[in-house]
Amino acid sequence: MFTLHERLAADTTVLGDFALSRLLLMNDNRYPWCILVPKVVGAVEIYRLDESQQGQLWRESSMLSEVMMSEFEGKKLNVAALGNMVPQLHVHHVVRFEGDEAWPGPVWGVGKASSYSEDFLIKRTIQLQTRLIASCETHSLLFMPWKK
Amino acid sequence: MFTLHERLAADTTVLGDFALSRLLLMNDNRYPWCILVPKVVGAVEIYRLDESQQGQLWRESSMLSEVMMSEFEGKKLNVAALGNMVPQLHVHHVVRFEGDEAWPGPVWGVGKASSYSEDFLIKRTIQLQTRLIASCETHSLLFMPWKK
Repeated sequence: MFTLHERLAADTTVLGDFALSRLLLMNDNRYPWCILVPKVVGAVEIYRLDESQQGQLWRESSMLSEVMMSEFEGKKLNVAALGNMVPQLHVHHVVRFEGDEAWPGPVWGVGKASSYSEDFLIKRTIQLQTRLIASCETHSLLFMPWKK
Repeated sequence: MFTLHERLAADTTVLGDFALSRLLLMNDNRYPWCILVPKVVGAVEIYRLDESQQGQLWRESSMLSEVMMSEFEGKKLNVAALGNMVPQLHVHHVVRFEGDEAWPGPVWGVGKASSYSEDFLIKRTIQLQTRLIASCETHSLLFMPWKK
């Protein structure tokens, strides 16, 4: 049975589920930062997913990317599967702005996460869920939001 | 017409061309490190490629990933499209080992690149080109090696 790695569970809020991946919001208000985790037991590397899973992962990633960049109007989107510390396959999507704390370097390991306030976390969750549901309709994808 | 960004050109050797992407080898012998650059003029973000280009990019990435991990037997593959410094869309593929210079952090911005010797660069180029040509046959992909 699929379960989220404890480190991912501790650092994020679940926004919902796509057909393949669970969608997480990193609890760090320095950057709009979402993570896709394919619900495939034991998955570690993208290239070891089967062909249809890889295709589905990238369709979900593409739609999420479009929503995040259109919503937050960043300078650049960083998309990355690293996994050196947390082996469970997960794909970061981080909206970057000129002048953000880590700019122009990568965000990992830079400074300390700044948690959302409870109110802002609810607001951001609803904002992203609403946009994702609307965007899924036009992309023939499935997204099931989790209630906070 | 597609041309490689001058920073990418300065830091890498061209290994060859897939149908969509140019394949580069980073001139840094600390890590086996390849970069895919879709030959699409003006491309900056993956999600803005059209659907068929995205599918092709990820098929090329998946095959490259498999070849790199099987050839170098790394602990983890890092796959990332960052582009904060070089806007031209490019996707890093870096084989990571426990105990490598940046482990377990990301490689970008850590230390200084250590250039290949001329002999080792030729050896590694031929090693990767040979494996990619063989692997392309089984995956129905096209790879055209560049001569050094």
